[in-house]
Amino acid sequence: MLRSKKAHNFSEWYSEVIQKAGLAEHSAVSGCLVYKPYAYAIWERIVAETDKKFKKIGIENCYFPLFIPKKLLEKEKAHVKGFDPEVAWVTEAGHHKLEEPLAIRPTSETIMYPSYAKWIRSWRDLPLRLNQWNNVIRWEFKHPTPFLRGREFLWNEGHTAFATEKESTAEKNQILDIYSEITEDFMAMPGIIVKKTESEKFPGAVATFTIEHMMPDFCSLQGPDFHLDGQNFSKAFNIQFLDENGKKNYVWQNTWAISTREIGALIAIHGDDLGLVLPPKIAPIQIVIIPIYDNNSRSKVLSEAKKLEKQLSADFRTYLDDRDKYTPGWKFNEWEIKGVPLRIEIGPRDIAAKQVTMARRDNQTKSVLKKANPKDIAKLLTAIQNNLLKKAKDFVKAHYKSSKNYNELKKLVKDNFVEAGWCGLTGCEEKVKTDINAKLYILDRKASGKCIVCGKPAKYVVYVAKSY
Amino acid sequence: MLRSKKAHNFSEWYSEVIQKAGLAEHSAVSGCLVYKPYAYAIWERIVAETDKKFKKIGIENCYFPLFIPKKLLEKEKAHVKGFDPEVAWVTEAGHHKLEEPLAIRPTSETIMYPSYAKWIRSWRDLPLRLNQWNNVIRWEFKHPTPFLRGREFLWNEGHTAFATEKESTAEKNQILDIYSEITEDFMAMPGIIVKKTESEKFPGAVATFTIEHMMPDFCSLQGPDFHLDGQNFSKAFNIQFLDENGKKNYVWQNTWAISTREIGALIAIHGDDLGLVLPPKIAPIQIVIIPIYDNNSRSKVLSEAKKLEKQLSADFRTYLDDRDKYTPGWKFNEWEIKGVPLRIEIGPRDIAAKQVTMARRDNQTKSVLKKANPKDIAKLLTAIQNNLLKKAKDFVKAHYKSSKNYNELKKLVKDNFVEAGWCGLTGCEEKVKTDINAKLYILDRKASGKCIVCGKPAKYVVYVAKSY
Repeated sequence: MLRSKKAHNFSEWYSEVIQKAGLAEHSAVSGCLVYKPYAYAIWERIVAETDKKFKKIGIENCYFPLFIPKKLLEKEKAHVKGFDPEVAWVTEAGHHKLEEPLAIRPTSETIMYPSYAKWIRSWRDLPLRLNQWNNVIRWEFKHPTPFLRGREFLWNEGHTAFATEKESTAEKNQILDIYSEITEDFMAMPGIIVKKTESEKFPGAVATFTIEHMMPDFCSLQGPDFHLDGQNFSKAFNIQFLDENGKKNYVWQNTWAISTREIGALIAIHGDDLGLVLPPKIAPIQIVIIPIYDNNSRSKVLSEAKKLEKQLSADFRTYLDDRDKYTPGWKFNEWEIKGVPLRIEIGPRDIAAKQVTMARRDNQTKSVLKKANPKDIAKLLTAIQNNLLKKAKDFVKAHYKSSKNYNELKKLVKDNFVEAGWCGLTGCEEKVKTDINAKLYILDRKASGKCIVCGKPAKYVVYVAKSY
Repeated sequence: MLRSKKAHNFSEWYSEVIQKAGLAEHSAVSGCLVYKPYAYAIWERIVAETDKKFKKIGIENCYFPLFIPKKLLEKEKAHVKGFDPEVAWVTEAGHHKLEEPLAIRPTSETIMYPSYAKWIRSWRDLPLRLNQWNNVIRWEFKHPTPFLRGREFLWNEGHTAFATEKESTAEKNQILDIYSEITEDFMAMPGIIVKKTESEKFPGAVATFTIEHMMPDFCSLQGPDFHLDGQNFSKAFNIQFLDENGKKNYVWQNTWAISTREIGALIAIHGDDLGLVLPPKIAPIQIVIIPIYDNNSRSKVLSEAKKLEKQLSADFRTYLDDRDKYTPGWKFNEWEIKGVPLRIEIGPRDIAAKQVTMARRDNQTKSVLKKANPKDIAKLLTAIQNNLLKKAKDFVKAHYKSSKNYNELKKLVKDNFVEAGWCGLTGCEEKVKTDINAKLYILDRKASGKCIVCGKPAKYVVYVAKSY
């Protein structure tokens, strides 16, 4: 049981879950997180599942240096302007002052694309679709929040180059589909695909698309993203190819990412007042088996529990908590806080009755299973997964409103995403930012009606929401 | 076919293989390598196989920050003395000068152990066995060699803590066994397990053990390593626990690593004058299928090749090179340079005769297979794997000598590892270093006879070899 309540004080609750579930802690470097094994295991599962899907569509992994010489970082003007305020610089190494400071990658376009310019010669070399899984540094000065905002995070960065704009645009749905499968099917988190406004897009991109999550405090959290870069970088880095007619062209590029921020969304969206709640598909441990015994029954119960664990581990990620040094009550609490989807209790009475007791983490219900049949357990895990997605979707539905009145919007946005019309002008966007500390997220929908700020004809349908 | 010969000019040959096989290239940052997809795929396989073995013995993965505050780095005296000359420092971030410079991890003891000191309270918290897969920076000034020596490399770093010295010592064989399975069974590279001399051990360790590889230029290359750290770090970082009797004790610690350097060993040990040669167990592509067709036979051959690929991909990592834009001859050459263990050719005549032609990369022999039967192919791949290990072992055997005479040693060490007696004194070790630019590697063997340098009774059996 936690001290804080999710509905009462979300940010206190969020910190307490992270601490008590043993997910992460602050390090000696402000804004840099220590990922404890339990959180890292969640990340490993996100990586493994996403990577499998990338490989299936022909993406190849590679690794580029951590460092970017200053001159390269500055090659694309909008890009450097966006990242410059957050760059960490290496100026000394091995007791020598460096001749040119080295940026620690905030993202790798500028260290990768000189290689792309070398590798891409003709249409035969296209498309080039590479990806890296690595760590990046963005020296933010806002208050750090574990997983959601920090100075170092882990992510994938996909960097692709195509011969034509059409091909590069076609990659958008392919990649966003993969990310949606990860966030929605795998992590049971609903997402809304939006286009960012000009002022919010990725520095250097032509257009930025993101999957946004509704957080319990009604902020819109930017999840995985996809950037159409057009020919901005290929022109800055001179990435040209000879087409089949022998004509030189600049390539069309995209970049896309999913990061450890998703762990923060996972904690926030599914957790409850008892701690973390993990959807079975992402859970590092899906089933924890807790033997209940006294000195007399110990060996019999442990041997039955081991048998059960061996049987279930063929199909599920299981953990038999047979540690003598802790009581069953302590263990119940521990695994509840850690959000393991299913707990199986096995004691002398269960053995006598040839059954096990199962406790669901998501809805706290208990049931008795006569025989621990993998099919029945798989069904139960699917039910848990579906229930968590449904609950999360219901929350979004209950807090997704629409409005045509600016004063109403102001009130609604405190605990809702609010759909509205927008004229497309920066002035109206800025007013929303300063007035009500909210942002506009463009939906892929035909606009009608009026801009909720200025009343002129709407060019876009947006939702308005607070953000971090 | 390469321009350079392995036996004639090893270092030129090594660079040419790396370039022509598309493994890596230099970046704009001196000493930092671009890992192209093919090299990175080899690293991914090393990581996956090693990680599986770590998890099986209960090692958990985690992630600690890239940065280490200066004060922490300096806590263990021998450690900082060893690494200080190679540290890269971040002194500025987001246009602000940092109050305290941040080291980029050359290794993570000093950022991890403050957490260990917090996490470890009682015997219940032990053993603690964590691992990270990450990137580290060591700002070397010697000439960089791709994979073998550079300023950034990828590795695992295991950091474990035990209640007793006995338990910590017992981990040595467990970890070195895993590393040997990876290097010998998986990568077909023989290794010699040695103990480093006092002057060569890891800064901060009590003793360092490594798996050494004999390189084609008869240098001893340090492969995976294991360090017994005793209580050096636990005393510096105050990592204490209450034992079962309520007494406070310092923990006993180990650290261990395998790095991207193994890719360099792999290239060097197995490669030949036609390019890279990959053992089937590590090869990202085990079998390449090359269809041979003209305009008339194209659709028939491609459809048969696809059928074959589909059939084989269930059991093997296969690639069907059906690119129209290249000729079969060009493809043969490409995959030969890339070291794919087995090539299968399929053309109209093969289809008519209901057979395929197979070409082994390791010994250049061709054979005809009447039906592409997975069992026969598996046997063939095993034969290739075994042949490569045998060849590599034969090379070591042919160049492993022993000597009792210092002048003879001087001559032999040019193209041999030379077993000899050593008194254990630093003076004799230094003489070998300065006289013949070679190092001593301590073998786990009972000494007899005399020190090859000074003639006093030998305390150790060592081999003497050049090193990078």
